Amino acid sequence: MSEVYAARRERLREQCTTGGSAAAVVSRPANVRYLAGAAPGGAVLLLGPRDDLLLCRSLPTGEPTEGRADEALRVQVLGSAGADAAVAAADLAAGQGADSLAVEEHHLTVARHRALASVAPRLRLADLGCAVEQLRLVKDDEEISCLRIAAEIADQALGELLESILVGRTERHLALELERRLVDHGADGPAFATSVGAGVNSGRGGHRPSDRRVEEGDFLSVCLGASYRGYRSEIGRTFVIGTTPADWQIELYDLVFAAQRAGREALAPGVEYREVDHAARSVLDAAGYADGLPPATGHGVGLEIDEDPQLAPGAMGKLDACVPVTVEPGVHLPGRGGVRIDDTLVVRPEADGGPELLTITTKELLAL
Amino acid sequence: MSEVYAARRERLREQCTTGGSAAAVVSRPANVRYLAGAAPGGAVLLLGPRDDLLLCRSLPTGEPTEGRADEALRVQVLGSAGADAAVAAADLAAGQGADSLAVEEHHLTVARHRALASVAPRLRLADLGCAVEQLRLVKDDEEISCLRIAAEIADQALGELLESILVGRTERHLALELERRLVDHGADGPAFATSVGAGVNSGRGGHRPSDRRVEEGDFLSVCLGASYRGYRSEIGRTFVIGTTPADWQIELYDLVFAAQRAGREALAPGVEYREVDHAARSVLDAAGYADGLPPATGHGVGLEIDEDPQLAPGAMGKLDACVPVTVEPGVHLPGRGGVRIDDTLVVRPEADGGPELLTITTKELLAL
Repeated sequence: MSEVYAARRERLREQCTTGGSAAAVVSRPANVRYLAGAAPGGAVLLLGPRDDLLLCRSLPTGEPTEGRADEALRVQVLGSAGADAAVAAADLAAGQGADSLAVEEHHLTVARHRALASVAPRLRLADLGCAVEQLRLVKDDEEISCLRIAAEIADQALGELLESILVGRTERHLALELERRLVDHGADGPAFATSVGAGVNSGRGGHRPSDRRVEEGDFLSVCLGASYRGYRSEIGRTFVIGTTPADWQIELYDLVFAAQRAGREALAPGVEYREVDHAARSVLDAAGYADGLPPATGHGVGLEIDEDPQLAPGAMGKLDACVPVTVEPGVHLPGRGGVRIDDTLVVRPEADGGPELLTITTKELLAL
Repeated sequence: MSEVYAARRERLREQCTTGGSAAAVVSRPANVRYLAGAAPGGAVLLLGPRDDLLLCRSLPTGEPTEGRADEALRVQVLGSAGADAAVAAADLAAGQGADSLAVEEHHLTVARHRALASVAPRLRLADLGCAVEQLRLVKDDEEISCLRIAAEIADQALGELLESILVGRTERHLALELERRLVDHGADGPAFATSVGAGVNSGRGGHRPSDRRVEEGDFLSVCLGASYRGYRSEIGRTFVIGTTPADWQIELYDLVFAAQRAGREALAPGVEYREVDHAARSVLDAAGYADGLPPATGHGVGLEIDEDPQLAPGAMGKLDACVPVTVEPGVHLPGRGGVRIDDTLVVRPEADGGPELLTITTKELLAL
C-alpha cells in the first residue's frame, strides 16, 4: 500500500508545483487519510519541500476507524496539549525554506488560517482548492474492493432485518438494530446515520428515525451503509408492510423504480453528471412530481459518504470509469409517505458490462 | 421558552453593538441551537439590525435531535439546492442597511468567509469570536434539568449492562448495546461515541471499541452519555471482571478514585479551572504517573459534549455557579490497562450543598 500513498502524494506535489507552491498542508480528514493512510483526530499532512510528514496529536492506533498510517511516512506526534497540527506544519514548512504554502481554504477556518499566517509571516499562503477531492474521484481496484465489501455488509444487515418481525417496532429501534448488524458483519461502523422512515415518514431523504412505530399498510423506507476500511457504501429500499399494497403504493413504487432504473442505465464513462440526474428526474417530473424533489438524485461515495460528483441539474462534468456513485431518486407525499430507492454502483464502460451494481438486495416491491 | 431564546439573543446583540457591529451571523450549530432553539443542517442565525431570522435549507422538523425552533423567530427556507445560509444572511444584512457584520471566524472556513465578503462587498466583516460560547457557559434551570435527565438515562443504561453477562462479549458489542439502551430510556441518541475498553484497552481516554473480548481478570472501562433535548451528559466507570481483583488493580483503582474525588471536591464558584485540574492531577503526579496523563482532567458539557471550560493546567478563568463539568482523571498503563472514573457535576456554592453530582452510579470498585 505504501507505494499507492506515495504515488498519490506525488501527483498532488506535481499539481502544487505547477500551481506555484513548493509545499502544501492537507487538513480535511478524508483527504489526509487518502494521502497518508490514516487520519487520527486533528492530524494534517505536510507535503514538504523536502519530505512529507504526518503531524498528529497522538500516535495513529491503526484501528479500522482511523486507518493504518503509511509506514514509509514520517510521523510527528505533537502531544495532546491542544497544539494545532496545521500551524505546526506551516512552521515546519517555513523552516524548511518554503516560500509559499497551499492550504485547503474550504476546510481551514478563518481563525486557523490567521494562526498559520502569524506563525510563518514570510510564507505566502495559497489555496490548494479541491485538488485532493479531484484525485479521489476515480477509485483504484483496492478502493473499489473495499466499497464492494461495504455494500455486501449492508446487504447482509438489511437481509436479516427483513426476516424479523417489523410491525410494532419503532423507527429508532430498527435503525439501531441495523447498525448493530453492520458491525456484526465486519463494518468499522455505519457509513452515516441509518435512516428508517415508516408511514408518513417513508420516502423522506435523510429522515432521522423517530418513535413512530411500524404499522400494517405502511411504506417503510430504510437507508443504511457500512464503512469498511474507511470506504462508505449506501443502500436504500422501500417496503410495504402487510400482505397487499394499496394501488397508490404500487403506482408510486413503480414510478420511482422506473426513475431509478433510468438513472442507473444512464451511467457510463463520458456521460455528463447532469444527464444522469436528468434521466432519473425527468421520469418523476413527467408524472407531476417536479416540486419537492431533492436537489441531487445521486452522489459520489468513497472515504466520505457524500463526495463528488453530484448528480444534479446544475452539476458540471462528466463521469469517468471507476467512479462509484449512488442513484437514489425518491418521492415523498406530505402526510402520506413515499418511496426512495438507492443503490451504489461503479461506472464501467459498456465493454466491461456497464455499471457494476454493488448493492444487490432486490428492488422488487416486497410486502413484509 | 420563546422568551428565553429572545433574552439570549438580546444579550448577544448588546455585545455586538458594544463591539461596533449592528448585525451578526451565528453559524456554529450548537450556538445556533442555543439562540434559536433548533439548528437544522446548515442553518445560520442572522441577528439583524431590524429583526432576527433563522435561515435554513429546509423547515426545522422539531425532532429531538435537531430541536424545536423558537416560534417567535422568523424562519426563511432557502431550498435545498446547496445555498449557503451564511452567504444568504450576509446578503440580507447588507440589504437591511447594516454596515458591519460579526461572524464566527473560528467556525467559518476561509472559502465561506470569502463568499460572504463577495456577496456583500460594502459590509465590514468583524469577528464575533466565542461570544456565544461564553454565554453558554452558565446554564439556566431548564438546561440543568435536561442534563440531569441525560445523566439519569446513562445511569440506567449502565446499570442494566452491569446485570448482564459480560465475559466473552466484544467491546464493540457492549458499546452498541449501551447505545441501544440509551435510546430505550429516552435519549435523543448517544452524546458521543460510547467507549468500552477491556483489559489492555481499559483506562484509555476516548478508546474506540474494538473486537477485543472481555476476559476474566480484566479491567473494563466504560464511558458513555445520553443526549436529551440536545444536552449531553458523560459518565465513566471502571470495573473488574471476575471475583477477586489483583492487588495492582485495587491500588490503581484507589489512586484514580482519590484523584477524582479531589477534583470533585475542588469544584466551587470562584475556583480557577486549573486549580480543579491540579487537585486531581497532583494525586496522580505524586504516585509517579505524571507522564501520559491527558491534557485536561475535565471539561464543560452542555449542547456539546466537550465545551468550555477546560479543566487543564494552562486554562485561564474561574468557575461560576451553575456550570456543569466533568471530572475524569485516568491512568493507563501500556500493555496492562488502567482506570478512568468520570462524573458530570454542576458547580454550586457551599451554601447550596456544594457540587451537584448528576451521574450517581456507584464508584466502588465492582467485581462483575
